[in-house]
Order: sequence, then structure tokens, then C-alpha cells
Amino acid sequence: MNRSNSGISGRSKGSDFLQLDPAEAPAGGLADWLTDRLRTAISMGHLPVGARLPSTRTLAADLGISRGVVTESYQRLTEDGHLAGRGRAGTIVVAVPLANRTTGRSRLRTPPRPPGATDAAGRTADTSCRSVPDLDIFDNLRSAPARIDLTPGVPDLAAFPRTAWLRAERAVLTDLEAAEFGYGDPAGTPALRRAVAGWLAQYRGIAADPEDLIIVAGVAQAIAMVAQLLGRHGVDEIAVEDPGSLGSRQHLQGWGMRTPPIPVDERGLQVDVLRKSGASVVMATPAHHFPTGTVLDGERRRELVQWATDGGLVIEDDYDAEHRYDRPPVPALRAMLPDQVIYVGSVSKLLAPALRIGWMLAPPQYKDELIGRKRLADLGNAALPQLTLAQLMESGELERQLRFLRRRHRTRRDAMVTAIRNHLPTATIHGAAAGLHLTITFDEGDDTTLAAAALQQGVKCHPLSWHCQLPHAPGLVLGYAARTPTEITEAIATIAKVC
Amino acid sequence: MNRSNSGISGRSKGSDFLQLDPAEAPAGGLADWLTDRLRTAISMGHLPVGARLPSTRTLAADLGISRGVVTESYQRLTEDGHLAGRGRAGTIVVAVPLANRTTGRSRLRTPPRPPGATDAAGRTADTSCRSVPDLDIFDNLRSAPARIDLTPGVPDLAAFPRTAWLRAERAVLTDLEAAEFGYGDPAGTPALRRAVAGWLAQYRGIAADPEDLIIVAGVAQAIAMVAQLLGRHGVDEIAVEDPGSLGSRQHLQGWGMRTPPIPVDERGLQVDVLRKSGASVVMATPAHHFPTGTVLDGERRRELVQWATDGGLVIEDDYDAEHRYDRPPVPALRAMLPDQVIYVGSVSKLLAPALRIGWMLAPPQYKDELIGRKRLADLGNAALPQLTLAQLMESGELERQLRFLRRRHRTRRDAMVTAIRNHLPTATIHGAAAGLHLTITFDEGDDTTLAAAALQQGVKCHPLSWHCQLPHAPGLVLGYAARTPTEITEAIATIAKVC
Repeated sequence: MNRSNSGISGRSKGSDFLQLDPAEAPAGGLADWLTDRLRTAISMGHLPVGARLPSTRTLAADLGISRGVVTESYQRLTEDGHLAGRGRAGTIVVAVPLANRTTGRSRLRTPPRPPGATDAAGRTADTSCRSVPDLDIFDNLRSAPARIDLTPGVPDLAAFPRTAWLRAERAVLTDLEAAEFGYGDPAGTPALRRAVAGWLAQYRGIAADPEDLIIVAGVAQAIAMVAQLLGRHGVDEIAVEDPGSLGSRQHLQGWGMRTPPIPVDERGLQVDVLRKSGASVVMATPAHHFPTGTVLDGERRRELVQWATDGGLVIEDDYDAEHRYDRPPVPALRAMLPDQVIYVGSVSKLLAPALRIGWMLAPPQYKDELIGRKRLADLGNAALPQLTLAQLMESGELERQLRFLRRRHRTRRDAMVTAIRNHLPTATIHGAAAGLHLTITFDEGDDTTLAAAALQQGVKCHPLSWHCQLPHAPGLVLGYAARTPTEITEAIATIAKVC
Repeated sequence: MNRSNSGISGRSKGSDFLQLDPAEAPAGGLADWLTDRLRTAISMGHLPVGARLPSTRTLAADLGISRGVVTESYQRLTEDGHLAGRGRAGTIVVAVPLANRTTGRSRLRTPPRPPGATDAAGRTADTSCRSVPDLDIFDNLRSAPARIDLTPGVPDLAAFPRTAWLRAERAVLTDLEAAEFGYGDPAGTPALRRAVAGWLAQYRGIAADPEDLIIVAGVAQAIAMVAQLLGRHGVDEIAVEDPGSLGSRQHLQGWGMRTPPIPVDERGLQVDVLRKSGASVVMATPAHHFPTGTVLDGERRRELVQWATDGGLVIEDDYDAEHRYDRPPVPALRAMLPDQVIYVGSVSKLLAPALRIGWMLAPPQYKDELIGRKRLADLGNAALPQLTLAQLMESGELERQLRFLRRRHRTRRDAMVTAIRNHLPTATIHGAAAGLHLTITFDEGDDTTLAAAALQQGVKCHPLSWHCQLPHAPGLVLGYAARTPTEITEAIATIAKVC
């Protein structure tokens, strides 16, 4: 789609957008034809969930047809639940048609949007159709029904230690002083800060004073606070890995940061490109790259340390570093560079994202300002879950949980690798024996089409495209941690079928 | 203190600041003299916690003494724990000297501040010394030791229903599907949104669709989200009640809003002044004004409705509206004005601030954008406490808790009123028979001095000055909900003694 060319006179009737040609339409059937073509494009993944359609005015002008026809077509697809109007932000694909369904209301969630609303990032329809999925893409994907959910980024949620959690909370409630139900230290409860300091020393090689830790509502909030902090210090861009987490990128952009992409290869972040880019801050996952699973190799690590020592600032997202299956995880970069690294981590991959508990360890010069941002954000995390988690950490229960998960996840990873070798022999498997997901790539094809087709067959995963800003091989990001080996094998076989 | 005049030549030696006159100092004892004068000023409340001192350069020039003397004096008070350097933000009073202590380290918390740090609002030393307590003033006050804590704004924390909470959480954990431990809807769990909608219908006269509710991490986060939203829509000021909550004002300012004060009298917010101010948004507490306890009277309520109908937007902070002891609370303004009111509430005054759970109900045109802000803030509140609270609401447990608290708080309020009549017969008691605190005013005096003196005697409360931007009678804001009648009586007697 090249919207800047729209409306130029003298062009032949027809549009770059989906190569639509109204001459194909039967007489009197323009609206039916257009609706059908758009539905097919959504179904095939050419218009993935989150894609923005041209305005009715633009598309009508491109096609040389009346605007009423385009409006009618958009309206029908909206009623079917495939599109949603977002006021000034345009019209968005919110759901893929289910297999063998062409009429009636979709079972996918299509939240009504009032006229005039923009998305939270305030973006309007100037982003190109394919490049940036919408901010609520994960919410929409979560709402889509599927038989087997391979969405990456969650541990085995069925393994959440419910009994241990409840036992720990009872112990906390028995001993708690009444005053602790009041407003607390915005940086977190002393008990959890002590427990996290112990955890980081043991598992991540980081020697931290509990007083220097800030408890946050997950890595998402940490990113928000860091973006606010750096924005106030005049920073307006934070370089990110490419491929790299779409969620993190969306968050940084939502808080006003540009996110220039720095390529990642099989040895990790290309630090020479980072250096040439002139960026002063980079967000990275050195211990286990998201989504490819690469571990930053020794030489690159030294280069990154040198770049930081020369004045760069690294936001180290240590998102699943404890989940290494073949050998001890590499120490966190923060362990070597306390003054150049803002370290962020959470229990989202250890216990559950729904707990919304994470931590941040910042260079001394930023600490108080970050506590100030946390105070302004929400006055501090809720106390009870903090204290319960501290209890689980201190009692050794979290360590038991991690060991249990490592064994279970390793089995599931092996099952996925085997299934991929059997069913998708041409796919390349990336990454170390670690983490909660795998990335595979193909020599050719369109991964958004593939992911959409897999979803139609009941298997949910991420196209690699979502996590890329630069050109890249097509691929899929496949979470295995939350599924049984049987489910994993069935899901991979299903993907192979639609490939 | 008039810092703009500092350094004007030809002035006599001496300073407007605390009426310091170096001629009083004994020969060779300038630093001792200055240190002593400053310590006394802090102790007497002339320099309350949060006050900003002139720079050493400015004060030295004013006094016609060497800068080294001022630096030495500030340094000694910093070592004693009374002052803290905040880099560009200047030097701040962080703790009052304890009674009968003049040397050694203070037991009050004095967080170290690195050079170059500014506070979270990015304010530097351009605010006048008395007017704006520092952002961490509540943290500092909380850390100060006291025998009897009358800090307003908390319910009886000892009454937190620990057993019921644990029982509800066990029920939740028993039935919870594994997927609910994953990332969830940023607007909140459906169960809690339904339960809150029911609560608001029953207690606040508001008919809300659960889908329109957004669960937030307390009113503080709601204020942050609203400030971000309105800022993006070009709003840069939100009028506030005066007196009015210092915490809310700090939050609005921290998120970039100016907060023009609109006076409140015995009938509530002076809507004619609001109208003349030209402000387009006001934050108000119509059901029970903070801190004076006034209920907006019928005519003012009609005026405010008219102002909003003419295009104004009201942020209705319904912070403790359920706590009315003599008659049913007035319905929320939101019940009448769904398109002109952003309604915010929480369980901080019903159960505990430490839960960090609140809700927001916005006009339709803002809903999606606010959900977007919540997503960018932290991806949504933690799920388990939401579901536990929903269970407490649905089971009637929260209603039982409210009835219990109402009875208990009423007794405590009566005890406080009686004690004030006995020990402080000249004080005026303000407000309706409602809430968790009382405000009293005096004909004359300095309330920061009084509050500091009370703290020295082990009684913690807020000077009314903290909650005022406009000139006002001196007063104290006294929380009674968390204290027994005996403690309350003793505390009031202590305050009477230092008066």
C-alpha cells in the first residue's frame, strides 16, 4: 500500500492496495466483490490482525469507485467482527474469519470503539499497513479462540503453586502488623527487596543492596518508568534488538521513544551497528535473546561492555534468564556494569504474568528519580502479594518451582524440537537450550499468512514479523512451556499442514 | 523568603529568610549560631518537612557572610539527618529534630540523594519555601516514629478481614483456570468489573455497564492516567479544591498539570469562582470534601452540574463516600452526568490502601484511550487480588465489613469530637458526620509549627497548610479511624498541651 500516491490523477483505475481491480467485479456487484476480496485478504493473512485499512475516501479514489461502496463494504466486515473503526486512527483488522465461516457475527472479540478515539499512543493512520501491529494486538490475539495456544512468553501456568502460595499468604497474614495495610514505601516492601536481592545474587550473579531495588508491576511498568526518566533527560530514542520483542517496542513507543532497530545475528546483538547508530541507550536481552534464543557471545559481550563503558546505557531485560536447561545461565550484564545498566526482571516467567511483580536495579544516579516515577505511577505495588512472594523466595519454594519448571519445560522443548524435525524438516530452529519458546524460520513464504492460517486451524502463535522492524526470513515464534508434549506435537503437525 | 531579591546590593546585612541577623552571632561562632537558628526553625515548624532552603550562595550573600559558613551549617544539619541535598533541587528539610535531641544521627529516615538528582516532578528550587511540601513528604512522615498516628486517609487497618480475605482467595484459587495466570485484559478481570458495577449501583447510585469500568492501582494511578489523557488532548491545568488533597495535587503536578485552586466554603466548592477561572477541568470530592468534610450543598451541586453541562469536565474523587454515619450518602455526581464526569474510587478506605485496587468510570469518548493508558502503565492490575476482592463483594463480605467499620468509625469520631470539645474548646470542628478524619481550625497560630510540635510529643497528623494553596485559617487534619477512643483522647490532650 502506498498511501502517499493515492488520489494522483491520471492513474489507471485500480489500487496498489491488495492489487484490487474493480474490473473484476460483476456488474452491480461492486460492494459484494470488494467485501469478498477484503475478507479473503484478512483470512489469508495479507491483512493481519492489527493492520490498518486505507480510509474509505482514499480507497474509493484509488479504485475509481463511489465512496459509498467502500463504506458499505467496511461496514459489513465490521458487523461480521473482522474490522473495527477507531475514529481518527482509521479502520483496523481485529479478527481473522474463522475457517468455513463467511457470515454472521464472529466469536472473536470486537470491542466497540467510539468515534474520535485514537489509540493510546496517539498514532493516527500514517503508519504503513503491515509494519506496526496495533497496540491491542496481544489483547485481540488472547481473545481469539484456539485449540492449542503456543503464544510465547508464559511459563506452564497449570504449574502455578497454588497451595504453596496460599500457605505463604496465610503465614504473611498471621504475622502482619496492621500498619502494613496502609500506604507503604513506593520502592517496595523491605521483605521482598531483601528476598529479590538474595535471588539475584544466587541466580544472576548480581550483588545488590536491597535498598537499591525497586519493586515494580512487571517489566512493562519498568519500561514505562525508564522511558519517562530518560525522556526527562532529553533522550528520545532507545535502540532495540531486531528481531526483538514487539511488546517492549510498543511500550517504548507508547511512552514517546523512537526505537531504531539494531540487528541480531547468531552471535547476538551487532554492537558495531549499535555504535555506528549513535544511539545512547539500548534495550537488550543478553542472557537469552527474545525471540531467537541466542546468547550474546563472549566477544560481543565484551564489545557491549566497552560501548557502555564509553558512555552508553543498557536496559537489560533479563526476562527468562533462569530457564537454562543445559548449563548455568550466563551472569547478568548488570553484574559487571552496575553504573551502565538498568536491570529489569520479573516473576512473569517464573510463576505467572498475572502477579504483575517485577524489579528494577538502576545505576545510583537514577535510583531516586525512578522511585519518584513509581510513586507517581501508583504509590507502589500492592503489599500482600509482595510479602507472599518474599515468603516463597525465602522458604525455598520458588527455587523448587524453578527446578520443577526447568525439568518440565525441557521435556516440552525436546518434544517441540522433535516434532519440528519430523513435520517441518526444512525449518531452521534457533536458539540455545533455554527459555519458554522456540523460533523457527523458513526459506520463503509470508509468516503472517502462515500464522493466520494456523489460527484458523486452531493453533495460536506469533509470526516472527511482529517482532521485526528490519527485513528478515519468515518465521514463527512458538511457546512450548504451557503445553503438553502431545499438544505440542499436534500443533506442529497442524502448522506443517497449513504451511 | 523572597529569593528574587537576594543579592541586591545596598541592603543591610541580614535576610528576610527567617529574619536571620548575623549581628546576633558571638564572635567566631557564626557557623554554630546559624546551625542553631536553622535547627530551631525546623523544630518549631517554621521550616516544615519538605521545605527548601536557599542555596548557600544566596543565603551567604543575603547575610553578608562567607559561603563556607553556610555550607558548614547545612552540612552539620545534613549529618544530623535534618536536611538532605537534592542536587539541582536544592537542600530540603527531611526531618524535624526529636524533642531534647540536638546531636547525633536522627532516627528519622533521611534517604541519601545523589548529586544531580531532581525530584520526580522535575521541580527545581523555584518554588517558594513554604508553599509546596516535597513529593516524598508522606513517605518521610510515615517513617517518622510516633506514639499515636492520626495521619488521615486510612480506615481501621486492624479491622482488615484477614480470614475472609484468605477464604475468598482460597475459593478463587480452587476454581481458577490456568490461563487466568497469564496476561489478562488491561481493563481488569470481568469478575471484578461486574462486582464493582454492582457495588456502585447499590452504594453510589451509579448504573454502570461492567464493560465501561477500568480497574486501576488506586486513585493515584487513576489520576496519573487522567492527567496523561488530558495532557494529550491539550489540557495543561486541572482546577482543584482549596483546601484540597495535597497528595492529589502532587500527583497532578507530577504529571505536568498546573492546579489552580478554587476555594471551598461551608457549602462546598465555589462554582462561581470555578466558572470565572476559565478552567475546563476540575477535580472534586462532592460527596465528602477532603479535608474539611463538607458535603456539596444542593444549590452548588446544581451550579456544578450546569458548569459541566456547559462543557466542563469533572474528575469526581469519591474517596470515602460510603462512610456516612448519620444518613445515606448523597449519590455520586457521576450518576447524573455520565458524559461529563470521570469517576474514580477505590477500596483504600473500605479495606486497605495496601491493596492498590481502585476503579475508574469515564465518559464513553475517553474509555478506550484510558484503557490504552492502563495497558501502557502496567498491562493491567494483578489478577488474584482482583478476583479475591470480587469474591468478597459478591459474597456480601465487603458490605458486612463496611457496616462494621461504620459503627466503629462513628464511635471513634464521637470520641474525637468529645476530646476536642474538652481539650481544645476554642478549635472549630468542620464537616459532616462522615469519613475517616476531622479537620479543626484555630483563630490564629501556625499549623506547621503545631504539627511539628505534636510530632515531637509523639502524635502524628497533618497541618491543614499542606492541603492549601490559598491563605486559610490554621488547622489540623486528624484521622480517627485507625485509633481507639483512648488513644484518640490521649492524642488530642497532647495536641492541646503543645498548642
